[in-house]
Amino acid sequence: MAKIAVLGYGTVGSGLVEVLERNSAVARKQAGEEVLVKYILDLRDFPGDPYEDRVIHDYNIILNDPEVSVVCEAMGGVGAAYQFTKQALEAGKSVCTSNKELVAKHGAKLLGIAAQKSCNYMFEASVGGGIPIIRAINTSLVTERIEEITGILNGTTNYILTRMEREGADYGQVLKQAQELGYAERNPEADVEGWDTCRKIAILASLVTGKNVDSEKIHTEGITGISGADFAYAEAADMTVKLLASCRFNEDGSVRAMVAPFMISRDHYFAGVNDVFNGILVAGDMVGEVSFGGRGAGKLPTASAVAADVVNCVRSRGRNISCTWKPEEVRLEDPGESERRFFIRASASERGAVEKAFGEGTGFVKLPEGGGEFGFFTPVMKEKDFDEKCSALGAAVLSRIRLA
Amino acid sequence: MAKIAVLGYGTVGSGLVEVLERNSAVARKQAGEEVLVKYILDLRDFPGDPYEDRVIHDYNIILNDPEVSVVCEAMGGVGAAYQFTKQALEAGKSVCTSNKELVAKHGAKLLGIAAQKSCNYMFEASVGGGIPIIRAINTSLVTERIEEITGILNGTTNYILTRMEREGADYGQVLKQAQELGYAERNPEADVEGWDTCRKIAILASLVTGKNVDSEKIHTEGITGISGADFAYAEAADMTVKLLASCRFNEDGSVRAMVAPFMISRDHYFAGVNDVFNGILVAGDMVGEVSFGGRGAGKLPTASAVAADVVNCVRSRGRNISCTWKPEEVRLEDPGESERRFFIRASASERGAVEKAFGEGTGFVKLPEGGGEFGFFTPVMKEKDFDEKCSALGAAVLSRIRLA
Repeated sequence: MAKIAVLGYGTVGSGLVEVLERNSAVARKQAGEEVLVKYILDLRDFPGDPYEDRVIHDYNIILNDPEVSVVCEAMGGVGAAYQFTKQALEAGKSVCTSNKELVAKHGAKLLGIAAQKSCNYMFEASVGGGIPIIRAINTSLVTERIEEITGILNGTTNYILTRMEREGADYGQVLKQAQELGYAERNPEADVEGWDTCRKIAILASLVTGKNVDSEKIHTEGITGISGADFAYAEAADMTVKLLASCRFNEDGSVRAMVAPFMISRDHYFAGVNDVFNGILVAGDMVGEVSFGGRGAGKLPTASAVAADVVNCVRSRGRNISCTWKPEEVRLEDPGESERRFFIRASASERGAVEKAFGEGTGFVKLPEGGGEFGFFTPVMKEKDFDEKCSALGAAVLSRIRLA
Repeated sequence: MAKIAVLGYGTVGSGLVEVLERNSAVARKQAGEEVLVKYILDLRDFPGDPYEDRVIHDYNIILNDPEVSVVCEAMGGVGAAYQFTKQALEAGKSVCTSNKELVAKHGAKLLGIAAQKSCNYMFEASVGGGIPIIRAINTSLVTERIEEITGILNGTTNYILTRMEREGADYGQVLKQAQELGYAERNPEADVEGWDTCRKIAILASLVTGKNVDSEKIHTEGITGISGADFAYAEAADMTVKLLASCRFNEDGSVRAMVAPFMISRDHYFAGVNDVFNGILVAGDMVGEVSFGGRGAGKLPTASAVAADVVNCVRSRGRNISCTWKPEEVRLEDPGESERRFFIRASASERGAVEKAFGEGTGFVKLPEGGGEFGFFTPVMKEKDFDEKCSALGAAVLSRIRLA
């Protein structure tokens, strides 16, 4: 029998206990032995909860209990979560988590300790919720030179953009709805500013390169600047807008990474990834493009991914099977050098200046009701050149979105 | 250094050698040691081939060489391929393959031998080509009660249906094109009659149930009866036609499995899976629906999946980590009992009789040019009741397609 401890009895922690309880027979069969939650660490008590008797407040009980072989960190944050994870690994206990912030910040170090101590640090749930993308990279796409990963990696922003598209509503209005429905947090910055997405793509890029990709150095833009008007133009051009994370792996070992809203064709795979769903495309040199989709967030899908890690830790007790990435920093390419087309919305009175700045592009999009403005698709150009031209045009440019 | 042998130097075998050669650095890093192709077994010689010196004709050399730890069976068929696989496993050598026919027919037995001999029988490439679906089921969705798997699992038929849809062409015409392009074999029965798809869904269903699903007992229909006219009606109804394999896992341990063309909405995930691509939806009780897509066939994608199995065999040398399924037969539900809606095309002169037989359904679809016939969507009904009504209508029914 494998005994585990759950740190934090919030959404993910209680979901994990629920998954392991409801599907205990499946977990037992797959792990080769019963998987039992022995402790739940939380500051609070949970009178009346069916697991009330497992709740403890002192982490040392877990650390000092040789029966506990796997610790699930469902606390969040990079403070106590980091200390507890480090201590567990140093004690030879495997740790499973959905804490992308911690993995992005201290993954290299924690994986190193796990390797030393012949245990595992697993974080399938940290990217793509219930989508098994991390294990796919670590165990399936293992004879591929991975060239590029692109993804919709945040359910909250994808939900907001989907609503904006379908209802023609503006950002603020939809955010408020999403908060009321519990799809967005009261402090939504980590989602809507793209930070959560950025941590996730940094984790995937670190796995692929085997080195550390510093999420704080990835060029990141959120969705707060996207308006209903942008969607109206997108629709007129048979396109839509999605918050995409992408990383391209160059032959010289450098990485081109970015998180930003992109305008994409309605035929594109990502145009079919809506609401709280996530989607990920991985391009390998042999296999071509492989896609993965599913619920990128939510209590049970996330908990399911943590539970799968627990089963894999139990299966491989005493052996380090997880990936590693070295603390060495990956060189990130200057985003100003990347080339693409762009969409801009501009004041109708400045049409001449826009055309002069960007050349012919692929022509203008004029909406019936868009009297005072127009949309314009630029030719392919460098980010830095585009920025320079936009700066020169000043207030004439109302909004700008990259084309994928 | 891990030394491997490749049985059969055809498309998949030579692709495998190519993947391991071109991406030898990746494979070495992921396997933890170099992966070297020591022998290539084939009846032919390959003068001038860069691997000419590795080609041998006597399997006993491989069997008796203790250096060879992994054998890749890329011969196909269930004759010599079965004998060689069995012998390798009995000698404690792991076997990797893309041979879905062999896995579907003798998987239970071969997995049993692998478990006994502490080696592995792996067949990621047997379903979905380069899509890592088998490892996802075996190692990721391991705390899920999997409720249903549905997939487009055959690239040839999906290519044919996609061409028929896009070009308004008839089946025979597109098949001929596909054969000329090498997308369909000269003897296309295994693909177009659905047998290949059927073996693949039987493998997935066996993995999920842990028991043997007899592919020969799965109700299987191919695409040879689908016409350009069917696609014209589908288009008029904003739908398309796909060859789907599905299996539903009942609480009582029985399985509802079927391979047949289905008419699906254009909004459906599978409507976006086109050409030679495959797509698979797995529904779990905790994670919800997870999707997997990619190239379901082709030399390098298939070889990449075999190569990934090789790396996993090397990583786990001396340990059985692969799944097992018991020889015990799974009970397949009577397909006549399943309920759904259907599309039929019928003679215009028989409209009264059709309406009498099926009631109102969701109304008629009449194409401008379809003077002598009409399309009709039935209400939800049992397969057996639908069959009975169609039999009674006789020649009035021109074609019939299930709705998904």
